[in-house]
Amino acid sequence: MQSLIAECKSGIPEDIKIAAKKEGVDSRALRKKVLRGHVVIPHNPLRDFSPCAIGEGCRIKVNVNIGTSGIRCDPEYEIDKAKCAIECGADVIMDLSTGGDIRAIRKKILDLDITVGTVPVYEAVRRAGSVYDLDPDLLFKVIREHCRDGVDFLTLHCGVNHEAFSALKKDPRVMGVVSRGGAFHIAMMESSGEENPLYSEYDYLLEILAEEGVTISLGDGMRPGSVVDAVKRAKTVEYLALGELAGRALDAGIQRMIEGPGHIPVHQIGYNVRMIKELTNNAPLYLLGPLVTDIAPGYDHVSGAIGGTVAAMNGADFLCMVSPSEHLALPDIDDIREGTRVAKIAAHAGDSVRLEERWYDEGEEAMAFARRNLDWETQFSLAMFGEHALRIHERDGDTETCSMCGDLCAVKMVDDILPKSGKKSDRS
Amino acid sequence: MQSLIAECKSGIPEDIKIAAKKEGVDSRALRKKVLRGHVVIPHNPLRDFSPCAIGEGCRIKVNVNIGTSGIRCDPEYEIDKAKCAIECGADVIMDLSTGGDIRAIRKKILDLDITVGTVPVYEAVRRAGSVYDLDPDLLFKVIREHCRDGVDFLTLHCGVNHEAFSALKKDPRVMGVVSRGGAFHIAMMESSGEENPLYSEYDYLLEILAEEGVTISLGDGMRPGSVVDAVKRAKTVEYLALGELAGRALDAGIQRMIEGPGHIPVHQIGYNVRMIKELTNNAPLYLLGPLVTDIAPGYDHVSGAIGGTVAAMNGADFLCMVSPSEHLALPDIDDIREGTRVAKIAAHAGDSVRLEERWYDEGEEAMAFARRNLDWETQFSLAMFGEHALRIHERDGDTETCSMCGDLCAVKMVDDILPKSGKKSDRS
Repeated sequence: MQSLIAECKSGIPEDIKIAAKKEGVDSRALRKKVLRGHVVIPHNPLRDFSPCAIGEGCRIKVNVNIGTSGIRCDPEYEIDKAKCAIECGADVIMDLSTGGDIRAIRKKILDLDITVGTVPVYEAVRRAGSVYDLDPDLLFKVIREHCRDGVDFLTLHCGVNHEAFSALKKDPRVMGVVSRGGAFHIAMMESSGEENPLYSEYDYLLEILAEEGVTISLGDGMRPGSVVDAVKRAKTVEYLALGELAGRALDAGIQRMIEGPGHIPVHQIGYNVRMIKELTNNAPLYLLGPLVTDIAPGYDHVSGAIGGTVAAMNGADFLCMVSPSEHLALPDIDDIREGTRVAKIAAHAGDSVRLEERWYDEGEEAMAFARRNLDWETQFSLAMFGEHALRIHERDGDTETCSMCGDLCAVKMVDDILPKSGKKSDRS
Repeated sequence: MQSLIAECKSGIPEDIKIAAKKEGVDSRALRKKVLRGHVVIPHNPLRDFSPCAIGEGCRIKVNVNIGTSGIRCDPEYEIDKAKCAIECGADVIMDLSTGGDIRAIRKKILDLDITVGTVPVYEAVRRAGSVYDLDPDLLFKVIREHCRDGVDFLTLHCGVNHEAFSALKKDPRVMGVVSRGGAFHIAMMESSGEENPLYSEYDYLLEILAEEGVTISLGDGMRPGSVVDAVKRAKTVEYLALGELAGRALDAGIQRMIEGPGHIPVHQIGYNVRMIKELTNNAPLYLLGPLVTDIAPGYDHVSGAIGGTVAAMNGADFLCMVSPSEHLALPDIDDIREGTRVAKIAAHAGDSVRLEERWYDEGEEAMAFARRNLDWETQFSLAMFGEHALRIHERDGDTETCSMCGDLCAVKMVDDILPKSGKKSDRS
């Protein structure tokens, strides 16, 4: 199976053309970025769908996690959640199921027309019965199966090695380890005394991924689980390892991205993101959050949108939606809708940094004109979530202005004074 | 009536002591900041309530606007909205009523135990019948009445002068003027050909405020009304004027703050806030939003929380809540609750920059310990909106972990491996 990187060396592969067209960028420039490892286009060769590019110069993408748990397991409902996320603009779905027939759920998710990722260690632990009974062979077997089922990218916690574990013990954190994958590998290492097989057998792992044409997302098992833990050393030890592993993957012709923290006070996000980008040679960076506070449970989608925007301003490429039920419960469909919408706003806000003039051309300027003209119909058609906006506007009846200012509408007042300009504004 | 600034010259006034205690700062240091005009403590001498400090080194405050409009006028409901905002943590209420018996509503709002602001020109226009019939004498009369009724600070658009108006005409914007106060003054200037009386008679205005002991909030009538307008020149011409007017107010012993934009793409917020702070000699800065996109109506509370946090990181001191119904309708009580909560999260996130270690001590560290211990009761008591979080957690029954990870809870797993530390974490 030829990988996208190998194909790029001899021409412009179809996936590059598709993704470049979606991004509105030159396909040769995008090919160069894929070759340098600054952009990935995850696409399992076994699947037929329209892939998207993630990384430098591309629009910021949003992932939505779905999946059953041991406590709540309704596979049909999880598929509905995925569909709802796609309707709200999700670019990627990750299936994190840990309850029920995990493979059957995965196969249904893979039928959707969207990039799909998984975390194979979850299923491996379920099949082993306990993390302490999980042997490396089973883990690699499950990884191969996820590839063969058609998953486009796999989150694998290869950087959770003895060195990172040792850093964690020397410089302890209140929350210890909150990454499920990270905790599994820590438990396996503690129980066996051996190195994390995904680290010690990394070359073998790369062989599998090369054979299957699957992208690796290097998981951050040591991500801080609270804002007070954000300055602890384990995460940086892991990033040093991830940087090295990212280089080896690229050398082997495998597309890879990096996962990042987590929980970070807002003033620490900028340097964290820039440092991770530097340590990993500008590999595409995929962030969960970061949450800028821990004391607003029920509103972690907002804490995550704030952190995600600031991360995007500093170079993050891919945001994982955080739902309002994070830290509290498995999200329901309303949580998925709310979380995805808010993450899309963060991604769009962050896009202003990378898209420059195009950002204004794609809706912002047209919305300003529609508002000035009190053209409500156009406003709702331009809105990211137009039906939702329409419902709010309509609750006070169908009025020329809105019920906030009523007859004292500033837009209406100055309309008589300042001549209407039909021209596009000059933003230079 | 002696102003707070005058009192500060001869000792430490009671308001300084109260506010310093609330902030956990030294009262002499706070007095110095009030004297320099870097902090204000709005408090009409006619009112008996517990005031708060706004500005450098103080916790970021949140204002919530309530008030009737010409289309929706239910005074009792507006009072309920104000009470809901206070329950959610609002530090300040502004009454922007433009419908019904405006004075009666104001008096009820002034009965609440919270800092209150108003925009007198709204009532002045209503009483004149039309903005074109508003003469300066009536405007100054209404300003005096608001002071005598006990309002703590007044938003007055003194910087909307001929120079700013001219800048607006020379460098036009798609959205023209979206500040209601700004639009009123533009209309008055256009109709009379005269200068804005609040600018030309600024010394007289300062006399009134000095006599009444009332704080001025210098309104930004030229704030951009869309992200595409953010780089237009009128706003900066106005800020230059506001800087000069802020200096004159301080020289006259009057507390003053500055209002700021509005709608700004996220990467432009930092330099805008820093420039306004520089132009106004670090006067406390009060921001509406800024909204980082215009295409997400229905979610402007989130766009505002993102922009507000970034503004706070760069020095903004005071955030005006934006509700989900902004640009669509007068907010209802659910909008007020949601908008206030989200603004409080933005303020708290921004506080991480200015409070340093204290920020972690006030809940963040305790929450991390409660989470590690799976101590749900403590988590809900520490949460900003604990009842809301509890309702989400409980929907899947009363479980030891949460329904997201269930038996595969990372916290539970590493609990056996990493020894529990009862010590406070060392964040140095």
